Amino acid sequence: MRVEIWSDIACPWCYIGKARFEAGLAAFAHRDEVEVVHRSFELDPKAPPASDVPVLDMLAAKYGVSRAQAEQMEARVAAAAAQEGLDYRSDRIHGNTFDLHRLLHLGAAHGRQEALLDAFYRANFAEARPLGDPAVLAELATGAGLPADEVARVLADPDAYAQEVRADERAAAELGATGVPFFVIDRRYGISGGQPAEVFRQALERAHADGVVEIVPAGDAEVCGPDGCAVPGH
Amino acid sequence: MRVEIWSDIACPWCYIGKARFEAGLAAFAHRDEVEVVHRSFELDPKAPPASDVPVLDMLAAKYGVSRAQAEQMEARVAAAAAQEGLDYRSDRIHGNTFDLHRLLHLGAAHGRQEALLDAFYRANFAEARPLGDPAVLAELATGAGLPADEVARVLADPDAYAQEVRADERAAAELGATGVPFFVIDRRYGISGGQPAEVFRQALERAHADGVVEIVPAGDAEVCGPDGCAVPGH
Repeated sequence: MRVEIWSDIACPWCYIGKARFEAGLAAFAHRDEVEVVHRSFELDPKAPPASDVPVLDMLAAKYGVSRAQAEQMEARVAAAAAQEGLDYRSDRIHGNTFDLHRLLHLGAAHGRQEALLDAFYRANFAEARPLGDPAVLAELATGAGLPADEVARVLADPDAYAQEVRADERAAAELGATGVPFFVIDRRYGISGGQPAEVFRQALERAHADGVVEIVPAGDAEVCGPDGCAVPGH
Repeated sequence: MRVEIWSDIACPWCYIGKARFEAGLAAFAHRDEVEVVHRSFELDPKAPPASDVPVLDMLAAKYGVSRAQAEQMEARVAAAAAQEGLDYRSDRIHGNTFDLHRLLHLGAAHGRQEALLDAFYRANFAEARPLGDPAVLAELATGAGLPADEVARVLADPDAYAQEVRADERAAAELGATGVPFFVIDRRYGISGGQPAEVFRQALERAHADGVVEIVPAGDAEVCGPDGCAVPGH
């Protein structure tokens, strides 16, 4: 089974939803059969790359509320994060995440995607580090086990893994995702939002029970099995 | 969309079926959305690792036929291979493929799985090279772009990627595959055997048209979209 998770590093419910999903997965009997793939989704692709805009200012402007009201909103999200044992700081920076997604694809090529995503989430939400700074990205990526030379090459070349990020975003649109986190099990079941762990566990159970629908049996087709291979006209 | 292909390097219909699948994929309008993953399946896990048994002798013994009859059977398979533009030699060696599958998983970790699988097929079927020889495997793996030190480490350690090979084989059994090649689209549609290209194209069309079935909409769940994030009690 494969679960694809579309998310953005700037998305609080992706950060929290990932922990909830993992709790649901841990409670799923066939968890060892599950492979998790993280997909790119930018909530604000027009955000400036090297931003120094505080999230609270962005929220106040976006919702047309006071800074105090934005702080209250953030406090409620922080409380939800705390329930999952996650640190959450509201003094973080709002910025573009395209380079982060490109690096996550490099991470996938090295089998280190999940480690890097966790490092990005932690740096953003728990540590409020400036993720618009390429030096910070390089430090996080190498710390997650990516080769320093490849990280530098990807950061220097805006086309590196850009197609992969765009392909993920197209796929999300085709699957009907308008927000994140968006979870898809075997391209068959979609789960939208940071649902409770039990919702994820039940969806995994259902997908597992359904199994594969074989539409094209071997029939006369050419197949090899333990007893040998079919031979034409034999 | 994701297509998983279970196959064995020792399987003629996997070699031929891969070419037929690729022809079907090339004729599929949404081919750019398709990711292909190759999965391990051993047709003869008890075969000796460093075998020098000619395939023709193995076939004669397995089917209880003469060597001349085994050659006739192989000639029919070679004719099918030729129709796909593939060279096919019957003077190849029959042997164990476990180490090849372990290396294919290393290849996947480096994004070079397909290149390595093609190299293995070519070496086995078109060139009749002795794939029981670790030096040949190392040459093919590094030629396909894998780092020489990691290839040597995997070849020296029989446990390296062994779990991944076993997991693929368990998944095949759970999906009901008793022979290979076995193609699975999005864990939803199974196609058994080296079917004609058009069968693959049609199965891809059908899987694409069905799309994802969303069972858990966001509802009150916590989700972030272009217009912002849901906030509890807000």
